[in-house]
Amino acid sequence: MTKRLRSDLAWSTADRIVVRGHDLAEELIGKVSLGDVAFLELKGRLPTAQESTVFNALAVTLVEHGMTPSAIAARLTIFGAPESLQGAVAAGLLGMGDRFGGPVEGAARMLQEALLQAKPDAELRAVAKQIVSAYKERKEPVAGLGHPVHKDVDPRTPKLFAIAAENGFSGRHVELMKLVSEEASRSYGRPLPVNATGAIGAIASELEIPWRVCRGLAVMARAIGLVAHIQEELEDPLAAEIWSRVEDESSSHIRPGTD
Amino acid sequence: MTKRLRSDLAWSTADRIVVRGHDLAEELIGKVSLGDVAFLELKGRLPTAQESTVFNALAVTLVEHGMTPSAIAARLTIFGAPESLQGAVAAGLLGMGDRFGGPVEGAARMLQEALLQAKPDAELRAVAKQIVSAYKERKEPVAGLGHPVHKDVDPRTPKLFAIAAENGFSGRHVELMKLVSEEASRSYGRPLPVNATGAIGAIASELEIPWRVCRGLAVMARAIGLVAHIQEELEDPLAAEIWSRVEDESSSHIRPGTD
Amino acid sequence: MTKRLRSDLAWSTADRIVVRGHDLAEELIGKVSLGDVAFLELKGRLPTAQESTVFNALAVTLVEHGMTPSAIAARLTIFGAPESLQGAVAAGLLGMGDRFGGPVEGAARMLQEALLQAKPDAELRAVAKQIVSAYKERKEPVAGLGHPVHKDVDPRTPKLFAIAAENGFSGRHVELMKLVSEEASRSYGRPLPVNATGAIGAIASELEIPWRVCRGLAVMARAIGLVAHIQEELEDPLAAEIWSRVEDESSSHIRPGTD
Amino acid sequence: MTKRLRSDLAWSTADRIVVRGHDLAEELIGKVSLGDVAFLELKGRLPTAQESTVFNALAVTLVEHGMTPSAIAARLTIFGAPESLQGAVAAGLLGMGDRFGGPVEGAARMLQEALLQAKPDAELRAVAKQIVSAYKERKEPVAGLGHPVHKDVDPRTPKLFAIAAENGFSGRHVELMKLVSEEASRSYGRPLPVNATGAIGAIASELEIPWRVCRGLAVMARAIGLVAHIQEELEDPLAAEIWSRVEDESSSHIRPGTD
Repeated sequence: MTKRLRSDLAWSTADRIVVRGHDLAEELIGKVSLGDVAFLELKGRLPTAQESTVFNALAVTLVEHGMTPSAIAARLTIFGAPESLQGAVAAGLLGMGDRFGGPVEGAARMLQEALLQAKPDAELRAVAKQIVSAYKERKEPVAGLGHPVHKDVDPRTPKLFAIAAENGFSGRHVELMKLVSEEASRSYGRPLPVNATGAIGAIASELEIPWRVCRGLAVMARAIGLVAHIQEELEDPLAAEIWSRVEDESSSHIRPGTD
Repeated sequence: MTKRLRSDLAWSTADRIVVRGHDLAEELIGKVSLGDVAFLELKGRLPTAQESTVFNALAVTLVEHGMTPSAIAARLTIFGAPESLQGAVAAGLLGMGDRFGGPVEGAARMLQEALLQAKPDAELRAVAKQIVSAYKERKEPVAGLGHPVHKDVDPRTPKLFAIAAENGFSGRHVELMKLVSEEASRSYGRPLPVNATGAIGAIASELEIPWRVCRGLAVMARAIGLVAHIQEELEDPLAAEIWSRVEDESSSHIRPGTD
Repeated sequence: MTKRLRSDLAWSTADRIVVRGHDLAEELIGKVSLGDVAFLELKGRLPTAQESTVFNALAVTLVEHGMTPSAIAARLTIFGAPESLQGAVAAGLLGMGDRFGGPVEGAARMLQEALLQAKPDAELRAVAKQIVSAYKERKEPVAGLGHPVHKDVDPRTPKLFAIAAENGFSGRHVELMKLVSEEASRSYGRPLPVNATGAIGAIASELEIPWRVCRGLAVMARAIGLVAHIQEELEDPLAAEIWSRVEDESSSHIRPGTD
Repeated sequence: MTKRLRSDLAWSTADRIVVRGHDLAEELIGKVSLGDVAFLELKGRLPTAQESTVFNALAVTLVEHGMTPSAIAARLTIFGAPESLQGAVAAGLLGMGDRFGGPVEGAARMLQEALLQAKPDAELRAVAKQIVSAYKERKEPVAGLGHPVHKDVDPRTPKLFAIAAENGFSGRHVELMKLVSEEASRSYGRPLPVNATGAIGAIASELEIPWRVCRGLAVMARAIGLVAHIQEELEDPLAAEIWSRVEDESSSHIRPGTD
């Protein structure tokens, strides 16, 4: 009648803590890096050296992007709730949604679903053409392509693809992502290079990370970056100045004594 | 009149992204691990090999503790808001407060403030005695000591202290933490061993991480663990069962047709 | 080049605070109820007596649903972060997503988009048929219909529709919602009555609240309920017991000494 | 061995939902306003007319304060995660901590603890003197006094106190709050009038709302205001402009091509 509750992630007794089958004190602490434990958590086993290089490259790419809306929100939040660093990180992460974290998920989903439905020997250019025309029909931008700042080439993309190739993770998902870029550029008549989220989505798919948690790569990495922003905010605060400027300007059209 | 806004964490142009002075594509991606980038973010420079080992050990310890209140909250949240993985991680992190993330901060603060106020050549046992009697007077448990499950020894503590010592980070903060444990055990007449949060707080202090962001070590590491819990929840959901049981039992004394 | 920041919600000077054009101290405090200020905030003007009755009815319906996943998450969060009541409320609200808050939005969107596209004199039964067949084609459940517990009739629905009718807000959105229920019941061959979220989505549409913020009605109302859950949790805590049970059971298959 | 889970807030069966002992459909929807249901949730009974006026006045005061850090954070969050209105409200609420929501709690705690410890016939001016000297000794600002903008008098305070008095809720907590203001002004040699949070903390104490949930009054009321800010942001977005300005200025000292 009732479902049995069950989780395979960890257990502990008075003298042991075991994470994903590995004794935390004996096998992980001091022996395995943070990025590799993240791989262990998601995949249920430790990475090979090649997997470690590739997975860490993806995560490192997502840690820090400067003064993003997430970072500003975290800084405004620690200003109002200095007792709760966790609340400020949470506020920042809440902005890692469809616009910022979502594109990694979107690209991974696009590739994983297309290759799941395609026959094992499907010609990938045909698959790419289908993908592009489906997006075009829905009048949506193709996942993983283009960037408002890095217009010609996203400097992260060739690096990520090179690392994936050097380590044996440049398979059909990566190939399909590149073909989608080619077909979209042709179809829209302007360069639509693979951006960092497209590269990450493709390579995460090579690592067989399900698309439903690919947004989580951005979330876990950005949690690190947000702690750094909060540290800087505590040392040299910007929130009060941002608040003051935004409040003054935004109400100046209705506040007496201002123009 | 207005303060100039300024952040040193990152900047980007059309063809470059620079994080803490390092070109992201050229110097970090594929070359530096996630844990080392976390160190870079907090400290403004990449770690030495020794620092890397020690810092990663701290972070790894904090990733996963099984089915904690945070993990359960994250699972209940993704059940209600499956569109927002970032919201489920945020909900889980919000529980990393005074009870779970706070002790790392508490231990680091206790040690950093005591050594800041003490003379450089202060006898550490005397400092430890002062600390313990101050806590006793305030009727508060001493930060970083004791554990409800790991009563005799927290298996993480000796490992963490050993790694710190092997890598040259067993200085006065670590020494003071151990002496606080000795003095508290004597004063309270029962074993009060250093727990994992005490060890982490002490070693983070050796790495000169300010106590105000030490809770952030737990927050950033646990973000990883929470993504793994959400992944497991999506594959094999527990939230509906937990909800059903808790709702049924908690209202059974007032709901007609139940006893 | 830059956009002028502008908000019409409120302004203040040394001796006045003005919310939506009303002097807070002189015109609102002590004169207008919380629900009516919520209406003012969303609509930019105070409600008529009829609008007040209808709007408050919608909000009241959404305040409290017992021990929901949101309420349990809020309780687990205050256990871990007792310093941050706002964090516990936030954690609870984060579960008011597609499954719990979303249906109000979904129903309102369905009705508002259909009536926006339909001609002013469109026959509503035909519109309802189109809606149902579109959902059926997408293999999605029709928004605002059916309930796992209140199978025959959701006790909130007839009440909400009666109040709307008595106060002059039983217009075309409400009519269309009822016809969608009739057509869906016929098409699926089983009773699919309008549930509370369907009724609220329809009546909110009569009040001309945009569907994009209709989820916000659930969010603002539930914030009240969550504060009450946190108050009860602080007086008579359940979180530790829930944690203990879930942790024990979920790891019993891998923890030594358990079966 | 295990604790029985128990909550008195609500229960439901197939045909009834009962909130705090009141049938939701029959007794609350359409009959009771949102503010009165909030009172019911917190107090376990519906308010008298006098209590309703006073409680709604407190809540109304806290709904909207213009472009606060919370409101800006909520707007930045909906920009990044447009799929999750609940996440944007949550992000905004997370800033209602020690600086913004906390003062209501602080004032209520100060008054409730002082009157709990004082004898029933204690002379309140003496209690006020003790309170002020205790804050002075700890070098902390006295809770509930002074305001950076409303320096001479907070326009909300006399209104709130008048409403409390007219409705029979101007008892010892309110009297003590006023005496604390007098004693603090004398002791610090400058006017320290009761601000809105001091008045609300005092009057909430008259309503016997425990200080531990007084911050929750601000949280529940502000949830309403944040939905209004998100609605305005969706209609007329400011987030991208704030992001752009803050990012440009804050990195201009290190970004090539800027001064």
